[in-house]
Formats: sequence, structure tokens, C-alpha cells
Amino acid sequence: MTTSIDLTEHCLSSQTLISGVMLTVKCDQVQLANGNISQREYVTHPGAVVVVPMLANGHVVLEKQFRYPLQQVFIELPAGKMDSGESMLATGQRELKEETGYTAGQWVKLGLQHPCIGYSNEVIHIYLAWQLLAGQHQRDNDELLEVFDASFQDCLNMIENGQITDGKTMIALLMAEKYLACHPQLIHL
Amino acid sequence: MTTSIDLTEHCLSSQTLISGVMLTVKCDQVQLANGNISQREYVTHPGAVVVVPMLANGHVVLEKQFRYPLQQVFIELPAGKMDSGESMLATGQRELKEETGYTAGQWVKLGLQHPCIGYSNEVIHIYLAWQLLAGQHQRDNDELLEVFDASFQDCLNMIENGQITDGKTMIALLMAEKYLACHPQLIHL
Repeated sequence: MTTSIDLTEHCLSSQTLISGVMLTVKCDQVQLANGNISQREYVTHPGAVVVVPMLANGHVVLEKQFRYPLQQVFIELPAGKMDSGESMLATGQRELKEETGYTAGQWVKLGLQHPCIGYSNEVIHIYLAWQLLAGQHQRDNDELLEVFDASFQDCLNMIENGQITDGKTMIALLMAEKYLACHPQLIHL
Repeated sequence: MTTSIDLTEHCLSSQTLISGVMLTVKCDQVQLANGNISQREYVTHPGAVVVVPMLANGHVVLEKQFRYPLQQVFIELPAGKMDSGESMLATGQRELKEETGYTAGQWVKLGLQHPCIGYSNEVIHIYLAWQLLAGQHQRDNDELLEVFDASFQDCLNMIENGQITDGKTMIALLMAEKYLACHPQLIHL
């Protein structure tokens, strides 16, 4: 990214504040572009993949899941963290199968997003998947979620009326909408 | 949100792991809906506001900012955290003025999103603002960013070609696109 002034912040020292079961949090002392010293606290994350799985009738496979930090059930697309050494596509295929039971014959990458640039290095890769084949999910006993499907237009309506507020799900659906507008043979909106 | 089974997770005990300069991180012991005990680690956040500021010529006011967790410069909309007791609208007005110098005569709320439901309780409220009046920014010495503007179509192109990957900026622009499609008098796309 070109900028007229150098905005780069340089690491002077790095400390791990938490190395938890789920979260790793670091605090780095940094030199700002103006020479001043400051500190940056942030979550380190292995990256994630979100999938827009499209059924033959144009419906999208979704999940309802309770998210503890916000104390509410969210409507979400299948998604999950990348395992060490795993490719983006392999993560998407694994998470789709594990969470919903579906496998997909066709995959296309729609792009990526950074959900939380202020305090996390997470990146979320976004895939559209179709030619779905139903199968047995592989959720573990403590992974409690409900799988359902909705028409693409209903998904867009749920974004507009505030029923879908999960950022990764909003972005993936809105990017899929643009992709499908250019590839209308894939779906009957 | 209706679910066929109860997915609620109940807090058994809560512990603050970090109460840092920027981040507060908690770890709660919880009872899952199936009765099992697990733990949830998450960042607590005061909430934030992002603004799509529209100039009279239909251009959008943007910023370039270095984001340390990802070690890169991002193209972003003006945004910031809510101060204690501050209304959403007041936050949007304050951040727009502080970061860019602009004040806006018209504000409309487009919705909200949750950027990071797995490990943060952050909510981001989304506003469109127009009738902009230029003025002096109020950035502090260590808040280093570059303000510029781009046509709305260029913003959409930058999402499509991957130059804009900041989640809050993508969602706000894509929601603004839908709002403006229904209110074409506001902009010459």
C-alpha cells in the first residue's frame, strides 16, 4: 500500500501475556513512525476459512450457534480455524464436513478479510462451494450447533433486517452475491 | 433466535486474565447445553462505530493506517471505540472529526455487525454520513494516518480486487451500497 509518509511501526520487544487454551495474547513495545515509543496488545490467530455452501436448489447451508462472548445465538456460515500446515482449501473442506456433513464437488475462492485489525492478526479466507453431497457430520460432543438452510434471498434479507450480524457471514454472503451476479448459471436467485 | 434445542452456555465462574492498556481478556468456566463443563476465553470490548463519510461529489473519505498485528497498511473508513457513557452517534461524530476533520450534517444508521464472535464481544455500529464540512482534525501526535478520498465505485473495486480487506470497512461499504441503491438522490454512483 503506497502512502505519502512512512507509517510503519517497528517491533522493539515482544512479550507473550497469555498462552491460553484458545487465545494467545502478545504485548509488543514498538517504535512508531514518528519515533515515539508505544505498545501494542494483540491476539495471535492461525487464520480461518468460511464457506458459503450452495445446495442445488440455490439454498445456502447455515448454522445456529451460541457464542458465549456475546451471550446469544448467531446465524453463521460453516467456518473454522486452520490447523497447523493445513491449506486454506483443506480447512474449508474439513470444516464443512465436520460441522454439516456436506462435501462439495466445486470450490472457488472469493477473497479474504481481516475481521479485527486493531487487536488480532486473524485472516479469514472465503470460499463458495457447490455440488454438495449430504453425509454424516463429525462434530464432537461439545460442538453444539443446529444446521439449516435458507434461500439466498432470505440470507440477504436477514442481513438487511439484522438477523445476521456475524461479520464473517455478512462479508461472505455479500461477496457471494456479487460472484453469483456474474455467474448466474450457479444459482436461481 | 429460535433454535429447536437449547444451545445456551451458562457462566459458572469468571476470571480476568489480562486487564491491559488496550485489551481486557477473560476466561470463564461454563456449563455447555449438554451439561459438560468447558472454558471460554474472550476479549471484552466497549463497542465501536464506523462511518461511511460521503462528499458532495459522491466520493468516500478513507484513511490509510498501519495496523501492527498484521504488519501492513490498511485502507479503512473512519472508526473508533465508544467512550464510557457515549452514544453511538456521538462516537461516530467524534471519531469522524478527530480522525479526518470533517463534520457531517446528515447521519443515518445502516446497521451493526459483530466482527469476531468466537473470541470478542465487540459490536460495530455502522453509519452513513453526508453533507460534510471540512475542518481541522484532532489526531494526537501518535495517531498516524493518511486521509484521502475515492469514488464509491473505486471503493467497490478495491473490495473486489483485494485492496480493501478490513472487515468493518468492507461491511460498511457493502451496506452503504445497498442503502444508496434505494436512495439514489444521495450519490451519483
